[in-house]
Amino acid sequence: MTSTPAPAPVPAAGPGTGPVTGDALLALAADPASDLVGLLAALCDAESVSGGETALADAIEAVLRAQPHLAVHRDGDCVVARTDLGRSRRVVLAGHIDTVPLADPPNLPTRLVGEGPDAELWGRGTVDMKGGVAVMLALAVELGAPGREPASDLTWVFYDHEEVEAERNGLGRLSRNAPELLHGDLAILGEPTAAGIEGGCNGTMRARVTTRGVAAHSARAWTGVNAIHAAAPVLQRLADYVPREVEVDGLVYRESLNAVLVDGGVAANVIPDRCTVTVNYRFAPSLTVAQAEAHVREVLDGFDVEITDAAGGARPGLDDPLALEFAGAVLAVTGGRPKPKYGWTDVARFAELGIPAVNFGPGDPLLAHKDDERVPVGQLALCRDALRAWLLGPVGPAA
Amino acid sequence: MTSTPAPAPVPAAGPGTGPVTGDALLALAADPASDLVGLLAALCDAESVSGGETALADAIEAVLRAQPHLAVHRDGDCVVARTDLGRSRRVVLAGHIDTVPLADPPNLPTRLVGEGPDAELWGRGTVDMKGGVAVMLALAVELGAPGREPASDLTWVFYDHEEVEAERNGLGRLSRNAPELLHGDLAILGEPTAAGIEGGCNGTMRARVTTRGVAAHSARAWTGVNAIHAAAPVLQRLADYVPREVEVDGLVYRESLNAVLVDGGVAANVIPDRCTVTVNYRFAPSLTVAQAEAHVREVLDGFDVEITDAAGGARPGLDDPLALEFAGAVLAVTGGRPKPKYGWTDVARFAELGIPAVNFGPGDPLLAHKDDERVPVGQLALCRDALRAWLLGPVGPAA
Repeated sequence: MTSTPAPAPVPAAGPGTGPVTGDALLALAADPASDLVGLLAALCDAESVSGGETALADAIEAVLRAQPHLAVHRDGDCVVARTDLGRSRRVVLAGHIDTVPLADPPNLPTRLVGEGPDAELWGRGTVDMKGGVAVMLALAVELGAPGREPASDLTWVFYDHEEVEAERNGLGRLSRNAPELLHGDLAILGEPTAAGIEGGCNGTMRARVTTRGVAAHSARAWTGVNAIHAAAPVLQRLADYVPREVEVDGLVYRESLNAVLVDGGVAANVIPDRCTVTVNYRFAPSLTVAQAEAHVREVLDGFDVEITDAAGGARPGLDDPLALEFAGAVLAVTGGRPKPKYGWTDVARFAELGIPAVNFGPGDPLLAHKDDERVPVGQLALCRDALRAWLLGPVGPAA
Repeated sequence: MTSTPAPAPVPAAGPGTGPVTGDALLALAADPASDLVGLLAALCDAESVSGGETALADAIEAVLRAQPHLAVHRDGDCVVARTDLGRSRRVVLAGHIDTVPLADPPNLPTRLVGEGPDAELWGRGTVDMKGGVAVMLALAVELGAPGREPASDLTWVFYDHEEVEAERNGLGRLSRNAPELLHGDLAILGEPTAAGIEGGCNGTMRARVTTRGVAAHSARAWTGVNAIHAAAPVLQRLADYVPREVEVDGLVYRESLNAVLVDGGVAANVIPDRCTVTVNYRFAPSLTVAQAEAHVREVLDGFDVEITDAAGGARPGLDDPLALEFAGAVLAVTGGRPKPKYGWTDVARFAELGIPAVNFGPGDPLLAHKDDERVPVGQLALCRDALRAWLLGPVGPAA
């Protein structure tokens, strides 16, 4: 059921699986002193696997529209809410509201396990990334209200379809439909980082390496040429490959080059005339896609290599003064030092728009998508407090 | 359409595609001076892909039941006809009446291309193996009739489901249901041998070689272990393998050991935790299945090897006096010298029953199952004449 010992069942912390209303969410989000556990449980129990985000997006939209300090825009199941305080700088805070499918048996409704500072909330979405969404939603309600004005203007983005094919990504759609809504001086993506800052992300490239032979009946194997045997040196080169570690803006990115799929042969009595090895290269954000392709072709020189898809990485953005300031605030509150993010995240979309972007949110990123996904509840308030302290601070003078 | 230049269309040599009646077949089979081309065309045009043999089996049964010198037995779509002349020896002559599926576009009805001794009959089944069936059917009608008594008693077996899974094989079914009907001193299987004798057959064994790893997201490849990379030395050993040539009863059998399928990985962003290489070993008939397994395990020592299926080969049987005599008769008529048969054929079933067995029939075995399957018509009468000469000869005294 889970990959760690299953905790004993305890009553669900949230209101139970099912649709959540804007009123219910608002009641949970509106208390600045809350520990956010109830809010997170409500967000998770409102199951929203990619493609099924509408009910949750509706509830979030209702919460945001109830705030006089926010102007709300809806694009599909993406909800954008912006302050307009005339500040000299604008910070974009974004998080996706969809999740990967539930585990089998279902890891919802959420369960609160343990007590006090060691308590953990278990269930789908607690890490990736409704923990970050809970922090964002509470601060969207709080900051901008009378007496709680932030030092920067704020843009909150709650978006859909992050866990599926890139072309369906709600943030990508918004950047095509209404790019002006994403403008800002720094973007913070609420992906899980265990309450530290993870900067940038590796790029990713997939290539297909094909070996060819001549088909023949295996009873007369010598009349054919075996394409699977011809793939042996491809696999050996990948097995021998020593991945690089590349420092970018002070963070060390670890690369990797792996065969992820292999497929060859047509029948158990036919000498195979074709074998395909699918390779995934994760490359440091200092490399362009063209440089990454050149490297793959160099490693696999002599073989038929076809690049099938690629997405450049994002530099950590920690050379940006605003990002450095945020990093300092996080260090002060959570003790988390900036680290590289290895997985590709939507910070790369902001990088493409020329906006420095970092990841910052509660939860261990290694637990994302796992059956035993769970978040230490203490990280929820910690992340909120760090963000709040920095956003309320004297970032820049009013315009 | 075909792998050699397509001949110009010519009128079909046979009666056209469709069901064939026993009366029509009998008329074509009953002329001892026929060149058998019309009979073969009729047999082929009565399409009988495995599972669809019933109509053809009915027609063949009708032909055989019309012969007073034959006792006929039907088992599913297998038809057995036996003489009972009290001879001291019995020769079994067997051929399957099913074919592999038609080519696309269909390679039926048959077409006669060319004239005279160079003419070829094109179409599905002409080689594998209705050519042999035509020879057998004509001789079944002829030999045993008054004044045409053979020197041995004869058992003719026309059977179904040879081109599919072994457990559906009609000869195998008959050997379970009525093994006494298959008893004999020598079996001749009418598989294509280009009118020579091909003795015995290689054995075949399939094994699954599995490498295992630890799954991980490919963004953090170093937390996993790549099972596809672990398969590199498996493929390299197979690529480096030098197959043996083994002499058995005077014939040289060529072995082979090949990867025929490879499959690994679950998704393009996951480090694969499993890779499976399916290996096919074709081994000389002097090896037992256990010896073959030991060899595969020795070559792939250190890897997880699972034997998934195996069938022992059949020695050529050319140390048997009766088989040697038949080989001499064939050499005299067709000029064909005994050769090894590489593909697994049903001679191995006879070998299991303790009956020496050889392959002998018209058609180039390399054209079996091909889209451009075709038989030189001259081989039909040649094979019939060689078989007839030997079967009418003084093999043994009456009991």
